Amino acid sequence: MRYDEMTPEALREELSALKKEYRKMQEMDLHLDMSRGKPSIEQLNLSMGLMDVLDSTSDLTCEDGTDCRNYGQLTGIDEARELLGDMMENNPNDIIIYGNSSLNVMYDTVSRAYTHGIMGNTPWCKLDKVKFLCPVPGYDRHFAITEYFGIEMIPVPMTDNGPVMDIVEKLVAEDETIKGIWCVPKYSNPSGISYSDETVRRFARLKPAAKDFRIFWDNAYGMHHLYDDRQDYLIEILAECKRAGNPDLVYKFASTSKITFPGSGIAALATSPNNMEDIKKQLRNQTIGHDKVNQLRHVRFFGDIHGMVEHMRKHADILRPKFEMVENTLEEELGELGIGSWTKPLGGYFIGFESLPGCARDIVARCKKAGVKMTPAGATWPYGKDPQDTSIRIAPTFPPLNDLEAATRLFCLCVRLVSAEKILAEREAQ
Amino acid sequence: MRYDEMTPEALREELSALKKEYRKMQEMDLHLDMSRGKPSIEQLNLSMGLMDVLDSTSDLTCEDGTDCRNYGQLTGIDEARELLGDMMENNPNDIIIYGNSSLNVMYDTVSRAYTHGIMGNTPWCKLDKVKFLCPVPGYDRHFAITEYFGIEMIPVPMTDNGPVMDIVEKLVAEDETIKGIWCVPKYSNPSGISYSDETVRRFARLKPAAKDFRIFWDNAYGMHHLYDDRQDYLIEILAECKRAGNPDLVYKFASTSKITFPGSGIAALATSPNNMEDIKKQLRNQTIGHDKVNQLRHVRFFGDIHGMVEHMRKHADILRPKFEMVENTLEEELGELGIGSWTKPLGGYFIGFESLPGCARDIVARCKKAGVKMTPAGATWPYGKDPQDTSIRIAPTFPPLNDLEAATRLFCLCVRLVSAEKILAEREAQ
Repeated sequence: MRYDEMTPEALREELSALKKEYRKMQEMDLHLDMSRGKPSIEQLNLSMGLMDVLDSTSDLTCEDGTDCRNYGQLTGIDEARELLGDMMENNPNDIIIYGNSSLNVMYDTVSRAYTHGIMGNTPWCKLDKVKFLCPVPGYDRHFAITEYFGIEMIPVPMTDNGPVMDIVEKLVAEDETIKGIWCVPKYSNPSGISYSDETVRRFARLKPAAKDFRIFWDNAYGMHHLYDDRQDYLIEILAECKRAGNPDLVYKFASTSKITFPGSGIAALATSPNNMEDIKKQLRNQTIGHDKVNQLRHVRFFGDIHGMVEHMRKHADILRPKFEMVENTLEEELGELGIGSWTKPLGGYFIGFESLPGCARDIVARCKKAGVKMTPAGATWPYGKDPQDTSIRIAPTFPPLNDLEAATRLFCLCVRLVSAEKILAEREAQ
Repeated sequence: MRYDEMTPEALREELSALKKEYRKMQEMDLHLDMSRGKPSIEQLNLSMGLMDVLDSTSDLTCEDGTDCRNYGQLTGIDEARELLGDMMENNPNDIIIYGNSSLNVMYDTVSRAYTHGIMGNTPWCKLDKVKFLCPVPGYDRHFAITEYFGIEMIPVPMTDNGPVMDIVEKLVAEDETIKGIWCVPKYSNPSGISYSDETVRRFARLKPAAKDFRIFWDNAYGMHHLYDDRQDYLIEILAECKRAGNPDLVYKFASTSKITFPGSGIAALATSPNNMEDIKKQLRNQTIGHDKVNQLRHVRFFGDIHGMVEHMRKHADILRPKFEMVENTLEEELGELGIGSWTKPLGGYFIGFESLPGCARDIVARCKKAGVKMTPAGATWPYGKDPQDTSIRIAPTFPPLNDLEAATRLFCLCVRLVSAEKILAEREAQ
């Protein structure tokens, strides 16, 4: 029965039982972490072969004769650009291979626009006001970058098809100070949804007032399907922009962080030739080149894109039961109570949870007091401020299945407890 | 006999012989490169063991329990901070391990000062004028970074003991817009000299007008001795600044680029706790962490600082004959002609050559026409403009010894040819 249809007496009784259960859980002294999108140890073990592909007898020469051990190759070795081109569905020529982190590439991209401007436009540091659109809920580390640069963030609501495009279109067309939008278009962080074809088409056809408006397209989970037979397909954004006559509209980011080892993978940026030339002017001053040995290591480990796809199936085999367990537990514990909704993504690293208004922060706090760490409530909103206080990101990947189940049960208990308290308090206030 | 003491007739005869010899050299169709400070293949082979220290059976756990394969450890793993601390002669706590390139760390350090300012001071992008002192001859990639950020570069002459400190002291004390100075204090690029104790002492005691003035101390060649028994020792700058009551005056940079593999090593920054806190505010937004697996790989390869020192002796065994051959050839071919001087460094990657005024550009051009690529003349000066046109950087490390000898002979021939022409032309003009 829905909590909001229960009599006050029944709800009070429920609350009392929940509190008793919560105290029992506290005594279990849990130390579980569902806060960050980290791969599990089992997943990391899948890539240990990466440590074997190069040894002291290996020839570390690229196909074009470049010695990977020495300086050079500013935009990456050809074979890595090909592999990541296949991974990102882009022409290898449109790709720059960077260092170990796509977050760092995004920071760098904002920073360059701030210091030098984009393709001849005024550097953002010389403007009085710069704004970014931030689909919400979104990724806290994106928001941290824009906040660090003093960029004003404007939340745009998300639907199951992506950001509300009516709003996006209107705002970017009207306001020249809006210079960018953060997107995680596939298996989105945190909701796990993918942008619909219509959404991508409309993105490619934006008519921004600012010539230096760019879409920051963080395709972090492009390869991260949970199922073989049910997968989201995304229209490739660079190609769609080109077809729409908007070739320079997008910076696209990806990495192998959650494919091999987070922090020891390779990251890449894909963009139009014009943007590429613009970026290279900086890159030449910034570095002599990124880690080519690690690029070669990745290429030799996967062989080709098919090798990477097969590798991702192994990740999926580990992740699928975790996602399903969480979803089933949520359904079992909360399904009929009307106190929360959640997504059932086909890939990615997160499940998005929406509580009753005004409950998210309390739920996460309750979890913490009983030993389960969640992503801080509000983290999915710019400045950490979720105005409705409803959005919670569930990150089921890191804990082992048993721990995850305990953590999810506790989470559900906290949702029930906080929601029951909330509903009762509201009734009493009436 | 010195060229400037020869009779015009004798000099014309010499020139004619030189031209004949030059044409002969051109027919040899050389393709040699003395332009960049790249290690040779033989040197790269010294580090192939780096590819063996980790394999799929390795435990990639740090001493503190961190799984190097996963996210985290923003400032680097403890054992890498210890190793690079020993290498840089700094407290591991004062060290941040970065990615693969110290040049990138320097760029990032300038960029951060530009976008956010140093320790609460006005960001450089908000100032009308920012200047850097540039000891000359110096490193072209340093100058490229400051030029890219529109920072005005003021050349400061170098002596055999470092920059002329009277000038440095006066300028930084007088001019608040001077925010930094580029230094390669040990086995300097390109002259190979090391700063004297007095120079370092005076650096640590600078009284800059600007609160956000910093010394950019690029200790790229700290470990790069050519001899066991004759080595330059440098006063450690952070410690000296602390003793002088100027703890926050320095950013110090280093990397293993020329110790293991350029581009696949690890880089580090050492600085005071105050600067460190300031930097971490950025770092947290910029990345989740650098490549810890590669940090661990380096630690396990060297074991400790003694292992690294022994490794550097092998580099020295390869480099020493090259440096000595170049120096001997220069002495043999040019020793008594009075048309150039050069340094005899005890370490590093370069020999500095000073031609007669107005000759450097022509010498390098002549070398190029006969198939030997040198660093462009002028590259050792800000904006590529060497006002006297005398400074040439010789980079003897990359070519095999035989090639290097051919290249050096050709270089000497070009020096003689251009100098003879120059002296004759001047006489005729009188």
